Amino acid sequence: MAESPRRAAGRRLLLPLLCLFFQGATAILFAVFVRYNHETDAALWHWGNHSNAANEFYFRYPSFQDVHVMIFVGFGFLMAFLQRYGFSSVGFTFFLAAFALQWSTLIQGFLHAFHGGHIHVGVESMINADFCAGAVLISFGAILGKTGPAQLLLMALLEVVLFGVNEFVLLSLLGVRDAGGSMTIHTFGAYFGLVLSRVLYRPRLEKSKHRQGSVYHSDLFAMIGTIFLWIFWPSFNSAPTSLGDGQHRTALNTYYSLTASTLSTFALSALVSRDGRLDMVHIQNAALAGGVVVGTSSEMMLTPFGALAAGFLAGTVSTLGYKFFTPILESKFKVQDTCGVHNLHGMPGILGALLGVLVAGLATHEAYGDGLENVFPLIAEGQRSATSQAMHQLFGLFVTLMFASVGGGLGGLLLKLPCLDYPSDSQCYEDQVYWEVPGEHEDTAQEPLRVEEPDTQA
Amino acid sequence: MAESPRRAAGRRLLLPLLCLFFQGATAILFAVFVRYNHETDAALWHWGNHSNAANEFYFRYPSFQDVHVMIFVGFGFLMAFLQRYGFSSVGFTFFLAAFALQWSTLIQGFLHAFHGGHIHVGVESMINADFCAGAVLISFGAILGKTGPAQLLLMALLEVVLFGVNEFVLLSLLGVRDAGGSMTIHTFGAYFGLVLSRVLYRPRLEKSKHRQGSVYHSDLFAMIGTIFLWIFWPSFNSAPTSLGDGQHRTALNTYYSLTASTLSTFALSALVSRDGRLDMVHIQNAALAGGVVVGTSSEMMLTPFGALAAGFLAGTVSTLGYKFFTPILESKFKVQDTCGVHNLHGMPGILGALLGVLVAGLATHEAYGDGLENVFPLIAEGQRSATSQAMHQLFGLFVTLMFASVGGGLGGLLLKLPCLDYPSDSQCYEDQVYWEVPGEHEDTAQEPLRVEEPDTQA
Amino acid sequence: MAESPRRAAGRRLLLPLLCLFFQGATAILFAVFVRYNHETDAALWHWGNHSNAANEFYFRYPSFQDVHVMIFVGFGFLMAFLQRYGFSSVGFTFFLAAFALQWSTLIQGFLHAFHGGHIHVGVESMINADFCAGAVLISFGAILGKTGPAQLLLMALLEVVLFGVNEFVLLSLLGVRDAGGSMTIHTFGAYFGLVLSRVLYRPRLEKSKHRQGSVYHSDLFAMIGTIFLWIFWPSFNSAPTSLGDGQHRTALNTYYSLTASTLSTFALSALVSRDGRLDMVHIQNAALAGGVVVGTSSEMMLTPFGALAAGFLAGTVSTLGYKFFTPILESKFKVQDTCGVHNLHGMPGILGALLGVLVAGLATHEAYGDGLENVFPLIAEGQRSATSQAMHQLFGLFVTLMFASVGGGLGGLLLKLPCLDYPSDSQCYEDQVYWEVPGEHEDTAQEPLRVEEPDTQA
Repeated sequence: MAESPRRAAGRRLLLPLLCLFFQGATAILFAVFVRYNHETDAALWHWGNHSNAANEFYFRYPSFQDVHVMIFVGFGFLMAFLQRYGFSSVGFTFFLAAFALQWSTLIQGFLHAFHGGHIHVGVESMINADFCAGAVLISFGAILGKTGPAQLLLMALLEVVLFGVNEFVLLSLLGVRDAGGSMTIHTFGAYFGLVLSRVLYRPRLEKSKHRQGSVYHSDLFAMIGTIFLWIFWPSFNSAPTSLGDGQHRTALNTYYSLTASTLSTFALSALVSRDGRLDMVHIQNAALAGGVVVGTSSEMMLTPFGALAAGFLAGTVSTLGYKFFTPILESKFKVQDTCGVHNLHGMPGILGALLGVLVAGLATHEAYGDGLENVFPLIAEGQRSATSQAMHQLFGLFVTLMFASVGGGLGGLLLKLPCLDYPSDSQCYEDQVYWEVPGEHEDTAQEPLRVEEPDTQA
Repeated sequence: MAESPRRAAGRRLLLPLLCLFFQGATAILFAVFVRYNHETDAALWHWGNHSNAANEFYFRYPSFQDVHVMIFVGFGFLMAFLQRYGFSSVGFTFFLAAFALQWSTLIQGFLHAFHGGHIHVGVESMINADFCAGAVLISFGAILGKTGPAQLLLMALLEVVLFGVNEFVLLSLLGVRDAGGSMTIHTFGAYFGLVLSRVLYRPRLEKSKHRQGSVYHSDLFAMIGTIFLWIFWPSFNSAPTSLGDGQHRTALNTYYSLTASTLSTFALSALVSRDGRLDMVHIQNAALAGGVVVGTSSEMMLTPFGALAAGFLAGTVSTLGYKFFTPILESKFKVQDTCGVHNLHGMPGILGALLGVLVAGLATHEAYGDGLENVFPLIAEGQRSATSQAMHQLFGLFVTLMFASVGGGLGGLLLKLPCLDYPSDSQCYEDQVYWEVPGEHEDTAQEPLRVEEPDTQA
Repeated sequence: MAESPRRAAGRRLLLPLLCLFFQGATAILFAVFVRYNHETDAALWHWGNHSNAANEFYFRYPSFQDVHVMIFVGFGFLMAFLQRYGFSSVGFTFFLAAFALQWSTLIQGFLHAFHGGHIHVGVESMINADFCAGAVLISFGAILGKTGPAQLLLMALLEVVLFGVNEFVLLSLLGVRDAGGSMTIHTFGAYFGLVLSRVLYRPRLEKSKHRQGSVYHSDLFAMIGTIFLWIFWPSFNSAPTSLGDGQHRTALNTYYSLTASTLSTFALSALVSRDGRLDMVHIQNAALAGGVVVGTSSEMMLTPFGALAAGFLAGTVSTLGYKFFTPILESKFKVQDTCGVHNLHGMPGILGALLGVLVAGLATHEAYGDGLENVFPLIAEGQRSATSQAMHQLFGLFVTLMFASVGGGLGGLLLKLPCLDYPSDSQCYEDQVYWEVPGEHEDTAQEPLRVEEPDTQA
């Protein structure tokens, strides 16, 4: 049943109003709570007798910038593989991440950096906020093309809070190590998005099937995303680790792991195809699984061989997932996973968490020397054995899966609020629903896309 | 009236001849004047008893590289939104900026780093030259599609000189603070280009109207530019600030401001459209206004809330400018502003200058502590009150507007020299005029584009 | 003569099998030989009493990341100029470089960092491996579009070994200086690829002529590669140089050289064209020659003027090469050089080596002061005169040309192994041979591309 154009236009008003409201609210909260930390405040920094070279900025800002590229260029363009959804992929990534950065600065600030009634910010809060935005974008990947921007904004609103709480439970309460976020970012983001996508299941999504694929140039745009993600993943995993050998080792392990996941993806993609040809979907995604799988363990003494083996396994699992499991996920589990986040972030994230369990359980004073304090402070201080640390890591994975599942379920209910606008089954994966699109394809532009009742999302 | 092909070809010779002449001239000036500074010269660096870690390179080169990406990728691709002007947008950006880097090294060197008869160069001169190239590219944005490369080269020749003089007056004579260049780069570049565009007004530009818009993939190329500009703007504003807390705070403020301008742009773009749909022009441009508006004040104690508020305001003003003011600018003021630089650099630049007036006027010894010396040395040394600094800042804005306007006028006259080649009214926004274009669109290739008399630029 | 589909499919199996075999082999070698060095190992780093700020990571990782972008984005997209070979250009770059990084870590490790039975890895081995991948990709450029991925993998297998040996002979045995690799990377990669292309000469390649050109958007994708290469080349040349003034000066010289090669390319491209129009092939490639030509000398006291002059010369030679020499190379020398690597890497590489001879021969204690130890340790220690160093540099060039030529010849024979799959003459420059391509061009998809006997590569 078609709704009136007036009503449709009214529903569209919700996006700007929500956006202005949230911006106003975060601005007020910033005014009340957010302050420069002692490395960004002119008076505080100069009060201490620091050498300027000792400012955290010089140790973390280059990594931050690499992470920033991954969030906005990497995720944005990776999702631009769809033939008619490039504006939305890049644009909504931009929008969602910008909001998540502000909102997460507040949530993570309250949980991790709240001292004397104020949140103290600097380059570390910038990195953490970008990490949280990464989780939101992973979830976005699961529902890409099937949601409106106001829905996405509400998803981010909820997910940022749950991300912060889950991260707090893991890192602060359980003493879990997860520098590159195999659990807190990838597993959490993936299963949050997948459960959410399950709740929003559309039985008649095949109405938009003709727009679900790529075209030649959209695949090349997606490769821009893939390659920048791949290049900068060593910086992602190492951005928050301890200075010195910690950042250095983390970057090195991630670099090796990614080369191996790339080779296994090329091999497996050719193997599983009918005629030995490579599939762009595998290359664009599974080649990145090596970054995900060492998210937890790359700061540990994983060894270069361990990094290669982990990357190889992740690329293999991820490619096989795209080929064999994604169809089952939709047909059997009614989860429509647009970007295959289950293959790129879900399974490799869980594998990464388990690898972290293993490597933590093998930690010895001999292997880490005085560096044990940086990687496993609780073991170094004698509060925990390596086995106990491993058990805590494992428990962290379960906590994450629980937070993600419950959160995704709640998110799904939230996104089904009747006031929210979303594309009908035949309008999915189509930029024209939310963007003014240059009149390249005159015929498409003639379709009466505007005044149709959103239908089966129920 | 058509000119003969021979004469047209003759006019085309001017570009390579000018280019070779200017390159020869700058090379000679480099040979005579330019020398390594004490951080790039092998003998000088090792003569002092420095730790290698103290070399300025490590504090500024990562920021420089981010700025470099902005200038060449950011500006180049942002301007590639036009459907048939991508080669020129990216290519002339490349060409103009390469020339501006050399020429500006000389001009800024004579004005700022001329000691003992020599210009001393290092990473700071690289950053400064890139900044100057940024101003030239802003001006290029105003006249994009309507000028030939020889004209652009002459524009850069003049603009680099005036940029250097204006910067010298502001920073060295008036003691104005303007690290990220709200005034020296954005306001100057925008109004220089706008006045120049006014002088080159083409009453019959609608002959090229069908090429003024984008196509689907050209908008995605433009988003590459937008996103890289957005990501690296914190590095742009912080590249030349004082080490330690200065760079750190500047990057943080800019990061917040950009998130807010992004949210306000999305909100406003949806609000001002007929049917709630988003406009790519707004997203590509106005979302960046948050970087411009804190160009002057981001090194100051703006506070995180101040950064959000400034960014929000800039995104709003910029989006409204694209929607409502750009048409008036053309119809009433006869300024044809191809990229809308008035909205992205002009108004936000002025706002940024005024914000600098405000924040400078509020500077106190309490807020800055011993860091006051770095941000407002004249106040710290007791030579000026905060109010006096604010007045100097305001005067700097007027000086900049004057230099830009007079310079743009002169530039317009220069570009109207009869020997210079430019596209006719029906050839604007068309790569084929200056580039060999692969024969994708056979019909277009058949148009007798070559031998037409350039007509209305008068 | 057509081979059976079954046999064709069988030949396709070779890629994944080789890939899995090589990955297994490198993994085993990593397990046996590769260990963290004292800056990435937790115990070793903390055993020494280092400040974390002294970790090599902070001095080289930002440069490494820039190099990493050049290898994967730069080379990948630069080669995506072909209208129907974008997937292969970006994808095989990704694949080949990932393999080369692992393999080269082993080869270079055995030759340069093998102590106590182990290869020690850290950021320097990462940079060196990326450099080696660069040489492989240069060779790839010469045979782009005419080879299958299994062939490319074997090429990389051989080339990485010879690259390592040649580099060892030059740097370790001959004491040659070549920080940015004018010889070891560019000359070696180019002539290896050119000789290999000669061996694989296809007399009937004109059957694929219609796919050898670009289309409008493929040229813009290629410009992404060009611009990122251009921007980050200063980091490439400076990544392995001595800390402090060494990295600083190298970056500065490269920056100047590139601006000059850009200006000369624009000038020459317009000059040599029939009608004064610019050619994208020149801009995309020759503008980069300034980075190649100072690969050897940019760490030396080249002077800013010297950098400009070198860049200007390289841009000129390179542009003229594309215009006049490439056709001769094919018609007279039977070398089909798809990307013109002879113009971008071959001739500028040799020029760069000769420039290194010149600048080394002019080295004096006055010019370098105590910095001479870093740039020319053998001269500083009195083991060599400047003239002798120059002669060694020149001899290094001959050694490189010999290794490259013999290696390329061997490579050609290796790639002609009958078990290897390669495209037929009419299938060259076509993604569909090795990739699932979205059905954009239905007509092309109908061509029976699969079951044709590869024909003239002989």
